[in-house]
Amino acid sequence: MSSDLPRVNGDRLLGDLASLARIGGTAAGGVSRPAYSDLDVQARGVVREWMRAAGLDVRVDTAGNTFGARDGKESLPPLIIGSHTDSVPDGGRFDGPLGVLAALEVARTLDEQSITLRHPLEVADFQNEEGGLVGSRIVAGRFEPEALELRAVSGYTIGDGIARLGGNPSRLTEARRAVGSIAGYLELHIEQGSILERAGKNIGVVEGLVGINYWEVTFDGVASHAGTTPMADRHDALLAAARFVDAVHETVISRPGRHVGTVGRLAVFPGGANVIPGRVVLTLELRDLDPSIVVSLFEAIGARAHDIAAKTGTTVSMAPTHSNASSPTHPAAQDAVRRSATALGLTTLDMVSGAGHDAQNMAVLGPAGMIFVPSVNGISHSPVELTRDEDIVNGANVLLGALVRLDSA
Amino acid sequence: MSSDLPRVNGDRLLGDLASLARIGGTAAGGVSRPAYSDLDVQARGVVREWMRAAGLDVRVDTAGNTFGARDGKESLPPLIIGSHTDSVPDGGRFDGPLGVLAALEVARTLDEQSITLRHPLEVADFQNEEGGLVGSRIVAGRFEPEALELRAVSGYTIGDGIARLGGNPSRLTEARRAVGSIAGYLELHIEQGSILERAGKNIGVVEGLVGINYWEVTFDGVASHAGTTPMADRHDALLAAARFVDAVHETVISRPGRHVGTVGRLAVFPGGANVIPGRVVLTLELRDLDPSIVVSLFEAIGARAHDIAAKTGTTVSMAPTHSNASSPTHPAAQDAVRRSATALGLTTLDMVSGAGHDAQNMAVLGPAGMIFVPSVNGISHSPVELTRDEDIVNGANVLLGALVRLDSA
Repeated sequence: MSSDLPRVNGDRLLGDLASLARIGGTAAGGVSRPAYSDLDVQARGVVREWMRAAGLDVRVDTAGNTFGARDGKESLPPLIIGSHTDSVPDGGRFDGPLGVLAALEVARTLDEQSITLRHPLEVADFQNEEGGLVGSRIVAGRFEPEALELRAVSGYTIGDGIARLGGNPSRLTEARRAVGSIAGYLELHIEQGSILERAGKNIGVVEGLVGINYWEVTFDGVASHAGTTPMADRHDALLAAARFVDAVHETVISRPGRHVGTVGRLAVFPGGANVIPGRVVLTLELRDLDPSIVVSLFEAIGARAHDIAAKTGTTVSMAPTHSNASSPTHPAAQDAVRRSATALGLTTLDMVSGAGHDAQNMAVLGPAGMIFVPSVNGISHSPVELTRDEDIVNGANVLLGALVRLDSA
Repeated sequence: MSSDLPRVNGDRLLGDLASLARIGGTAAGGVSRPAYSDLDVQARGVVREWMRAAGLDVRVDTAGNTFGARDGKESLPPLIIGSHTDSVPDGGRFDGPLGVLAALEVARTLDEQSITLRHPLEVADFQNEEGGLVGSRIVAGRFEPEALELRAVSGYTIGDGIARLGGNPSRLTEARRAVGSIAGYLELHIEQGSILERAGKNIGVVEGLVGINYWEVTFDGVASHAGTTPMADRHDALLAAARFVDAVHETVISRPGRHVGTVGRLAVFPGGANVIPGRVVLTLELRDLDPSIVVSLFEAIGARAHDIAAKTGTTVSMAPTHSNASSPTHPAAQDAVRRSATALGLTTLDMVSGAGHDAQNMAVLGPAGMIFVPSVNGISHSPVELTRDEDIVNGANVLLGALVRLDSA
C-alpha cells in the first residue's frame, strides 16, 4: 500500500459532525441525546437520510440498529464499520457520532472514487450504546430478553425504545447475526482518556477492550452511640471500609501495568452524624485486558480486606455482581489500523480500551478492530469533550485505509 | 449521714417501669414512643395520673413539660429531679423513664415517711429529649423559636407537638426559668455505654457532659471514567476521604483521654460504580469535656486533611456546623451523689457523659448533677437496652440520698 490511497473529505465530515450536534445540542456546547428520546429518534432519522443520499441501501433491524449497505465485488460476508449516535445525558459531541459519520464519509469516498470493495460494506449506527451496548449486544446474541423491561435514562423501557427506533422487540432474534457471518468490524472512537495526548501520538491501535469485574463489598460492625462508646470498644464499619478503599488503591498501583481499580459507590448505615457506622456497602471494580491479572489483584485485595476486618473488629463479605469478559481485538485488524496510520505518516500507540464499546460485541462475530483518536484533556461524557479537527480527519482516513487493507487481506 | 436513710420501694419502681413500657411496647421487647406521637401523649398522661396519686401538684408548662410539685419547709427555690419519657423509634425501656419514675418513687418515699425537705421539690418529665433536648432547652432559654417549624420523627412539627402535649407554642417564654431560680437538679439515667460494666462499678458520678462539635468536611476531586483514567491521573475524592477517616481515628487514639471522634455520615458523588468519585461530603464529630482538647484535636485533624488533599490531588474544606458546649456538673451535686452511693455501700466511678441530657440545660439555671447506672453490654437506643433490677433500685436510692444531701447543704 502507498500513500496515494483515497482520502476522505475532511471538511464534509466536520460539517456533518457539527450538523448532527445541533440535534440535542446543549448551551454548554455538548449534546444530550439519550437512547430512545425524541432527539435520539430524530438524529438516527437524519443519519439514515444522509446514508440514502450517499447511495447506501438503508434498513433498520428488529433491534432498532441502522445499517446502510453497499455491494461488494464478490459474494462474501460483509465488512462493517460504525459506532453509535446516542449520548449520555449532557454528554459530548464526539462519543459515538464520530465513528458513525466517519464510516458514512468512508462509504461516500469509496463511491465518489468509484471504488468497489471485494466485500459488501455496511455502515452501522448501533442503538443505546451508552445504556449497556444494547444494540450490538442483540446482534451478537448476548442480550437477555428480561432486559426489555429495564428503563433507560430517557424514561422508556428498552422494549418500548426499540419500537420507537423502528425495531420490533418481539422479533429480536431476527437481528442476531451468526458467528463468522461478518468479514470484519472496524470502529473509530475518541479515546475518552489522556493516554494518547500525554504520549503525543496521533492514533491509538486498540489491542483489546478490558474486562470489567464488579464486586459488592460489605463491612459489618456494630452501630453504636458516638458519645458513649469509647474508641477502644468500637466496631466501626466505616473505619474498616476507609482502610479498604486505601488498600484497593495501594494494591492496584503496587504492580506495573494498565489495570485500574475503583471504588465508585459507598453507602454508610445507619448514616447518622452521631452514630458509629454499623455497616458499609461499597462497589469494587477491577479492569484489565488479562483476566489473570484481575484474579490476582482480587486475591490480594481480598487478603487485605480480611486483615482489615480482623483489626477493626468487623466482618467483610465480597460478592461478585457482574462482569464483562475482556475482548482482544483481532491481530489482522490491529495490523490494518497500524499500517494504515503509518502509511499516512501518523504516529501510533498500541493501547487497551478501558471503556466498553460495540466492538466488543462484534468481536464475537468476526475479526474486530478499533481506532482511537486523542481526547483533549482526556475528558468525555461531558459538554467539554473535544477532539481536534485534525485528529478527526486523521481518524477517518485511518479507518478508510484499514478498511481497504482488511478487504484485500 | 448514715445508712439508716429512707429507701425507695424497689418493687414498686420496677412495676411502674414495666407498666409504662407497655405503652408503645414493641415485639422485640423495647419501646417506640417518639416525641409527640399518640403513645408519647398517652404515656405522659399516665405519669401525671401517678404523680397526682402520689399527692403531687401537677402542671404542664407552656413548653409541654410536666412538673409534679411538693412543698418544702422553707420559702426557697425548688430542687428538681427527673428526666424524660419520650424514646427514639424502636428504642429501649430505660432511657428516660428510669429518671422520671425513680424521681416519682423518691417523692412517694418522702411522702410515706412523712419527710418534708427544706426546699420545694419538683418531679420533671421533660418533652422531646431525644429530638434535641427540646423541653429542657425551652426552660433554660436556649430554644430558637424558628425550630417550632422543624418536624419531629413522629411527623408533627415541634410547635404542633407542644400543643399536643398541652403546651402553648405561642407562649413559650412563660416556660422559661431564670438563672438561679432553682436550688439544684438531679437526674438518674442509664449510662448508655459500657464503662461502668467494664470497671465493675455500681454508680457513675457524672463529672460533666461532653461538648459536641460537628463539622461538614468536603473533599473535591475530579469525577472521571473509571475505565479510561489511569491510576496516576486520578483525583479521587473518595480515596482522600478514606484516608481522612483513618486519620481521624489515628489522631483521636494517639492521645490518652476520654475524647472520641466519629465519622458517621459519608456521601459519595456522583456515586456510580464505574465513575471515579469527584466529591465526598462527610461529618466529623468530636466530643470532650474540655473544649481545649477538641480544639487541639481539630487542629491536628485539619493538618492531616490538608496533607491528604495535597497528596491525592484534591481540595478539602471543613465547615463547623453546630456544637453543644460542654457542661460540667456542680461539685456539690457530684459530692452528694458520691456520698449517697458510699453510704449505701455502693462503688462509684467518676466519669463523663458522652451523650447529651436534660441536665446540661438545667445546669444553666443552678447546680446540676447526674447519676449513671450500668447498661448491660453498653447498648441503648435499641430494644435490647437493659439495666438490671438491682442497679435500677440502687440508682433510685442514690437519687433519694443525694437529694436529701443537697437539700440540707
